[in-house]
Amino acid sequence: MTAALLGVVRERTPLVHCVTNLVATTLSANVLLAVGASPAMVEDREEAAELAAVAGALVVNTGTMTPERADGMRAAANAALDVGTPWLLDPVGVGPLALRTRVAGELLRLGPAVVRGNASEILALAGHDGGGRGVDATDSVDDAAAAADELARRYGTVVAVSGVVDRLTDGATVRHVRGGHAVMGRMTATGCALGAVTGAFLAAARGTGDDSLTAAVAAHAVVGATGAAAGASAAGPGTFVPAWLDALAATDGRNADALVDGG
Amino acid sequence: MTAALLGVVRERTPLVHCVTNLVATTLSANVLLAVGASPAMVEDREEAAELAAVAGALVVNTGTMTPERADGMRAAANAALDVGTPWLLDPVGVGPLALRTRVAGELLRLGPAVVRGNASEILALAGHDGGGRGVDATDSVDDAAAAADELARRYGTVVAVSGVVDRLTDGATVRHVRGGHAVMGRMTATGCALGAVTGAFLAAARGTGDDSLTAAVAAHAVVGATGAAAGASAAGPGTFVPAWLDALAATDGRNADALVDGG
Amino acid sequence: MTAALLGVVRERTPLVHCVTNLVATTLSANVLLAVGASPAMVEDREEAAELAAVAGALVVNTGTMTPERADGMRAAANAALDVGTPWLLDPVGVGPLALRTRVAGELLRLGPAVVRGNASEILALAGHDGGGRGVDATDSVDDAAAAADELARRYGTVVAVSGVVDRLTDGATVRHVRGGHAVMGRMTATGCALGAVTGAFLAAARGTGDDSLTAAVAAHAVVGATGAAAGASAAGPGTFVPAWLDALAATDGRNADALVDGG
Repeated sequence: MTAALLGVVRERTPLVHCVTNLVATTLSANVLLAVGASPAMVEDREEAAELAAVAGALVVNTGTMTPERADGMRAAANAALDVGTPWLLDPVGVGPLALRTRVAGELLRLGPAVVRGNASEILALAGHDGGGRGVDATDSVDDAAAAADELARRYGTVVAVSGVVDRLTDGATVRHVRGGHAVMGRMTATGCALGAVTGAFLAAARGTGDDSLTAAVAAHAVVGATGAAAGASAAGPGTFVPAWLDALAATDGRNADALVDGG
Repeated sequence: MTAALLGVVRERTPLVHCVTNLVATTLSANVLLAVGASPAMVEDREEAAELAAVAGALVVNTGTMTPERADGMRAAANAALDVGTPWLLDPVGVGPLALRTRVAGELLRLGPAVVRGNASEILALAGHDGGGRGVDATDSVDDAAAAADELARRYGTVVAVSGVVDRLTDGATVRHVRGGHAVMGRMTATGCALGAVTGAFLAAARGTGDDSLTAAVAAHAVVGATGAAAGASAAGPGTFVPAWLDALAATDGRNADALVDGG
Repeated sequence: MTAALLGVVRERTPLVHCVTNLVATTLSANVLLAVGASPAMVEDREEAAELAAVAGALVVNTGTMTPERADGMRAAANAALDVGTPWLLDPVGVGPLALRTRVAGELLRLGPAVVRGNASEILALAGHDGGGRGVDATDSVDDAAAAADELARRYGTVVAVSGVVDRLTDGATVRHVRGGHAVMGRMTATGCALGAVTGAFLAAARGTGDDSLTAAVAAHAVVGATGAAAGASAAGPGTFVPAWLDALAATDGRNADALVDGG
């Protein structure tokens, strides 16, 4: 499953439009290139609308939010909704910070195919009182399970909660994905990069007819498998990122399905 | 030729002012430092005008365009034109995206010494219907040859079209530069970094009396030689960038002229 | 001393809020994670005020200044002053560039615990005619000693001047910190990263009762020791950064005190 969708990414090199944060932009572009997609990081309101309408998928990430970047996000998500481009919402830091919490609440109504975040962000997005601090989760994936199911059903979306074991649901089916490595928590923007890779798989799934949950699970499995391998070979967080990008570029995805439970 | 100009960069450490995109800014600064120049990434309208007037060269890159960044670009290019600072235009994503296409059209009238882009960007800048998709070229360097010659003559500039073999022209003379490595297409902003290095060589050429075509060819040859060496030694795109920066810092440029044809 | 404070950073993972420049943001986040802190890069005016009030420390860096980012800096520094969050001012490029020079002058009045910069920036901040060019120092640490002492006494702050040997003073006591490696001058934003690490130690010192000079000296010593080790093992500037992040994540800080003179 994962290998087949990864093959489609490599064959079609889908254009993945990202409106993302300042910290994540370079790594997100590089993981997309490594996995075989074509990234375009475009945030201006006018350009974002143009690009989202022709992209294979759109990724909107609320880190380093500003009113101007929020305008670009709204324009991109509306354009994606109008023409049917699948898009992912990554609600970085939602909860403790008011501007991005308001903006994420608006964006949620524009039909994201996938919402991906840590447990505290998903709790906050669902209106629960998450314990997030800055951009870090202080809640566990299990703590957010009910909120994730509720969000998925209310908005007709897939909700992916990232943690030691990731939990993904479309409100009916739940899948778990293991993998990754503790060192990924010592490098910034690895979660944002996971969101970007998920965008590439959403784009590929348009050609295969796979649903968004299948695409998101495959993306999480590829990241889990390559992150685990790179984490095991790296001497620390600094050498992890080069090793991870090499692993993403080299993998055929065949070992990734073994990380997926449930279904 | 290349070794001599690289020696001048190292000796004078020219200040290279970049108004560039969010994805390219760190890598561009790092390649400039590796090659021996002093980067300054300044985008505010007021500061950009101050800096462009005292810099050795200016690099303007239209990626991640916003109206505010466009104001900084116009201010910098006008200041450079007024005092004779040579400057390079890198029209990232011009063609499919309207805002940056308009801004690049304005900037082209402000006397860039060099325009560097992929084939689709150069076709679009010349008013032809390029097939660019997002920020990727879908046309070949040969497809853009006539458009490049036309742009060079109309605006009195050097046009460098990047591809498997780069083609540079001032409208009269054509030079080709080989080198580089396929892995460079799997890392973001390597083309932008080539534009930044070209800025360093434009600054050095002010002291030697070399023309802009000579400077641009030398920069492309250094990037081609070091990119080929680093690409051959790297295990993938992740380990490529550290290896490339090391190669740029270590090279004396002597092996680079062998990559240049024509003249 | 250094090992004890580093242990507190690792145990408490303080939230370090950075309003920093586009070139420094990813590396600053990554050095903070490597050292054991929790970075949050938040620049919007509204969000910056919210976050600075709850953060363990705040770092404000004037590189890539814009009027909007200046608003975020003012809001964050005012919020920090109101609730007693210690904060660090890193006056990147102050002197030759007018906007950031004005903004840094305003920020200096909002009670920074530490000001960290190169010699030219400190001279300019004190109103002397520094010889800075772009963001590079053209003055020596000794040239800036009197200006640093004067700033420290006038504003009741610690002033850290970075150079081959760093000089830190609170206006009464002077400490010198050796270490680091020449290759750090060939990678962008290593000085900004030092400022970020100093923020983490300021946050840790809130729990131990150590003063800001002690915290700043410890941060400089950790950066000096890990930078020296990574510089010695790296093949060039490209391989330096991964090696440095690994060294920061691995160090227990015990070898760092040997780099500190004076007291």
